[in-house]
Amino acid sequence: MEAWRTAITNSNERSIWIRGYDVTALMRGATFTDTIFLLHQGRLPTQDERRLMDAMLIAVSDHGPGAPSAAAARLVASGNRQSLEAAVAAGVLAIGDAHGGAGYACMQMIADGVEMARTGALSIAEAAQRTVAEAVAQGKRLPGMGHRVHTVDPRTRILFDLARQAGLARDGIAFMEALEQAAREKIKPLPVNIDGALAAVLYDLGFPAAFARLLFIMGRVAGLTAQVMEEHTREKPMRVRIPIVYDGIPPRAEDDLGPNPRREP
Amino acid sequence: MEAWRTAITNSNERSIWIRGYDVTALMRGATFTDTIFLLHQGRLPTQDERRLMDAMLIAVSDHGPGAPSAAAARLVASGNRQSLEAAVAAGVLAIGDAHGGAGYACMQMIADGVEMARTGALSIAEAAQRTVAEAVAQGKRLPGMGHRVHTVDPRTRILFDLARQAGLARDGIAFMEALEQAAREKIKPLPVNIDGALAAVLYDLGFPAAFARLLFIMGRVAGLTAQVMEEHTREKPMRVRIPIVYDGIPPRAEDDLGPNPRREP
Amino acid sequence: MEAWRTAITNSNERSIWIRGYDVTALMRGATFTDTIFLLHQGRLPTQDERRLMDAMLIAVSDHGPGAPSAAAARLVASGNRQSLEAAVAAGVLAIGDAHGGAGYACMQMIADGVEMARTGALSIAEAAQRTVAEAVAQGKRLPGMGHRVHTVDPRTRILFDLARQAGLARDGIAFMEALEQAAREKIKPLPVNIDGALAAVLYDLGFPAAFARLLFIMGRVAGLTAQVMEEHTREKPMRVRIPIVYDGIPPRAEDDLGPNPRREP
Amino acid sequence: MEAWRTAITNSNERSIWIRGYDVTALMRGATFTDTIFLLHQGRLPTQDERRLMDAMLIAVSDHGPGAPSAAAARLVASGNRQSLEAAVAAGVLAIGDAHGGAGYACMQMIADGVEMARTGALSIAEAAQRTVAEAVAQGKRLPGMGHRVHTVDPRTRILFDLARQAGLARDGIAFMEALEQAAREKIKPLPVNIDGALAAVLYDLGFPAAFARLLFIMGRVAGLTAQVMEEHTREKPMRVRIPIVYDGIPPRAEDDLGPNPRREP
Repeated sequence: MEAWRTAITNSNERSIWIRGYDVTALMRGATFTDTIFLLHQGRLPTQDERRLMDAMLIAVSDHGPGAPSAAAARLVASGNRQSLEAAVAAGVLAIGDAHGGAGYACMQMIADGVEMARTGALSIAEAAQRTVAEAVAQGKRLPGMGHRVHTVDPRTRILFDLARQAGLARDGIAFMEALEQAAREKIKPLPVNIDGALAAVLYDLGFPAAFARLLFIMGRVAGLTAQVMEEHTREKPMRVRIPIVYDGIPPRAEDDLGPNPRREP
Repeated sequence: MEAWRTAITNSNERSIWIRGYDVTALMRGATFTDTIFLLHQGRLPTQDERRLMDAMLIAVSDHGPGAPSAAAARLVASGNRQSLEAAVAAGVLAIGDAHGGAGYACMQMIADGVEMARTGALSIAEAAQRTVAEAVAQGKRLPGMGHRVHTVDPRTRILFDLARQAGLARDGIAFMEALEQAAREKIKPLPVNIDGALAAVLYDLGFPAAFARLLFIMGRVAGLTAQVMEEHTREKPMRVRIPIVYDGIPPRAEDDLGPNPRREP
Repeated sequence: MEAWRTAITNSNERSIWIRGYDVTALMRGATFTDTIFLLHQGRLPTQDERRLMDAMLIAVSDHGPGAPSAAAARLVASGNRQSLEAAVAAGVLAIGDAHGGAGYACMQMIADGVEMARTGALSIAEAAQRTVAEAVAQGKRLPGMGHRVHTVDPRTRILFDLARQAGLARDGIAFMEALEQAAREKIKPLPVNIDGALAAVLYDLGFPAAFARLLFIMGRVAGLTAQVMEEHTREKPMRVRIPIVYDGIPPRAEDDLGPNPRREP
Repeated sequence: MEAWRTAITNSNERSIWIRGYDVTALMRGATFTDTIFLLHQGRLPTQDERRLMDAMLIAVSDHGPGAPSAAAARLVASGNRQSLEAAVAAGVLAIGDAHGGAGYACMQMIADGVEMARTGALSIAEAAQRTVAEAVAQGKRLPGMGHRVHTVDPRTRILFDLARQAGLARDGIAFMEALEQAAREKIKPLPVNIDGALAAVLYDLGFPAAFARLLFIMGRVAGLTAQVMEEHTREKPMRVRIPIVYDGIPPRAEDDLGPNPRREP
């Protein structure tokens, strides 16, 4: 088999290096958040970048057992008491376009908007207005805007403030704030939600769009592990009773499988 | 919590009904393949439909340990000897757009092509020619055509023959055969592969596009269970040694983490 | 890398063979259930064996959306609308010791009981009585007995009847029926549930204990695919609202993170 | 449905609290590692505890693409280009008893050993000697000892040094070091590996045994996300070619399915 190539981690009998750093040096002198940044960017973050990364990972780390990812993890933990990894993995699988996944689409929208501004000699505000106008015309939702629970997401303001204090707020945050204003004028008040805030900050930190989903996964796995532990320690197996209403075909005559014999006589 | 509604399965203390059939009647008189059809279509298949369903499920049931799904299942089985379900699930997760997933896109292409024929008063052959021309113009690949191993997929001909013998070959098969001919003329010989054959037959049987992926999953799970069993019974844990070439940043001085102190003093 | 060896499936550019059978011959002349048996046993089943396999796969194919596997699949489908395979895989992950997994432990208990009878010159009934006595003494539950919903599982009787009619009822069924009687005398009426019935029949068909879980997975994947389709076609994303009661530490003063400064100043 | 109870996270329309801390306060003043500790222990760590947690999460964060978890993630990423979460989840599923899972068993062994010392009025060294003697007598492996690559795991010494410097080295580390010495005398040099080191430190920090596996998962998810990104950005879909040797039944005559007619005529 052709060798698999990698530029991430190397090891020999005595050492392990992540992006060229000896893992023992990282263990002594770096934080886990530094290492996440290093794995993806190939360099250690500055202090300000680390602070933003910590804030983002914390922001998505848990939202209670009712989030689809946590509920899926707990249901798996309820039926499968032996495999902790199965429950955590099931939670990860629930993180998709509708749950924790808007950041991906939002980063692509930001990239398109900033590109539109550059090539069209528009301001960021004008690009945001066009983006809103196009979404309205096409009947599409704006990713990263609005939330089913939080009318104003408390995490958004903190993230944007931290980025500004650190001097790291750039086109991404500018675009999302302009989008919020344009949406308020042309649609309705649609606050930037946590997915949109992450997308803006990650764009400004130079991450690719796919990283928005990966960061959400890394952060939420922390919460999922706690949800799974709580299920195992506080609840009995198979405890969940979901109320069901059956609204399909009523029972047929028991032995009637129709005109075709199903099996050989 | 609002009750979850379902039209698939109902049960009480004494009985279980699937789409209205008592499960014990199905156990006595139906086949598993009948039940798969019933779960998705709400009725039992005719004898000819069942024959096609069996043929499709068998066609995708296994392709050896080198397929990404089987290899992923075996790697998980290699590191995790306690959880059979984890290994099977990992195999299922490898079934996506690039592996076993072209059927989904192909069914959408067939639906578009047949619709184009209907609304444009074209023959199926003309619609197929336009579809090829558009793919060439946009530099896109045609889903369901070509295979990395099989120059002519032996499974395709059998499926199409069975459908014809049963009188169930309709627009789906006609479109894919026309597409193969159009591709041969305008691009190169690109035989309909198993994904394309499944898509054609499933379209003709009235299934939605998403079912192409689900049928692949159901069929391949049979093979994955056998692959996992073989890994557990014939191989030692952690036996896989993948050759790796590291081509990233060389080792840095061990204690150099850069200008920022990483942790509080 | 050392080659991976397999005795299951072989293929070349023109053909695929499963356990030596050309897959196109199987597509023309066998059923999917035959192929499942073939993948695991290396030979095609007799007509009676096939009938039992079909009955078992149907028996576990679906039990409504409230089962942990189906509920997990639907929650993942609810948060992740793009990845059908993620939802099915999450459902598979819920199949463990507490849900669909008792068959594994039950087959081991049957094997131990039959071995005890052989080596101790006991009847199957005596071995079953000892097994019950030991479970009572150790305060352990008997796997494969009792059900949270069905006081008498309608599927058990059918399976045992089919096995008897086919002349395939052997020590496995005899042991589980003796266990039911011994439990009634020494504990309470504990009917053989579907897990126990599967274990008995699979033991009599010569399968290893691990296959009980794999058969459950193969059968249930059929139902999971239908549950996922119903979620996607009938329900909105993120529709599930699970009622939550928080009973942990009340809110602390907002900015109080305790005596240690958490981050560098 | 009965409400699900939780003591981890609470939220209302305006706020989210994790273990009573407003998530925005954590975002401003805590690190991600603090939050992981908080989620599981219900309190923020001291500076020394945080340092150890960071070191452990970093220690397991990545070990290159050849580890079963990374290889499974890359194979899934290779077949499924659309679902990042599927690839990460598959990697998580490979973390089991044989890969990253020894910490769980090792923490149970430590707990048993320390308990043995307490109740039997033995020293930790004597309890370790008995544990080794029992393993030798029963032909069992000692979890957390030895490594397939690293003859001396560089990460173990660092972890133990950090724990000692922080004054947090207690019975767990003492037991594992005594075990290493006892094994050297009675079996062969078997250095404490990273699983054993994590188990020792986590025991001394007061975590339950299951947390050893969860910490490994949280740390390794960081590396898995980087491996998946590298697969998507550097490699083509379906690039992996695993060398296969088929050693099963040779091809049979193509149409011979044996004495039983497989399908209805």
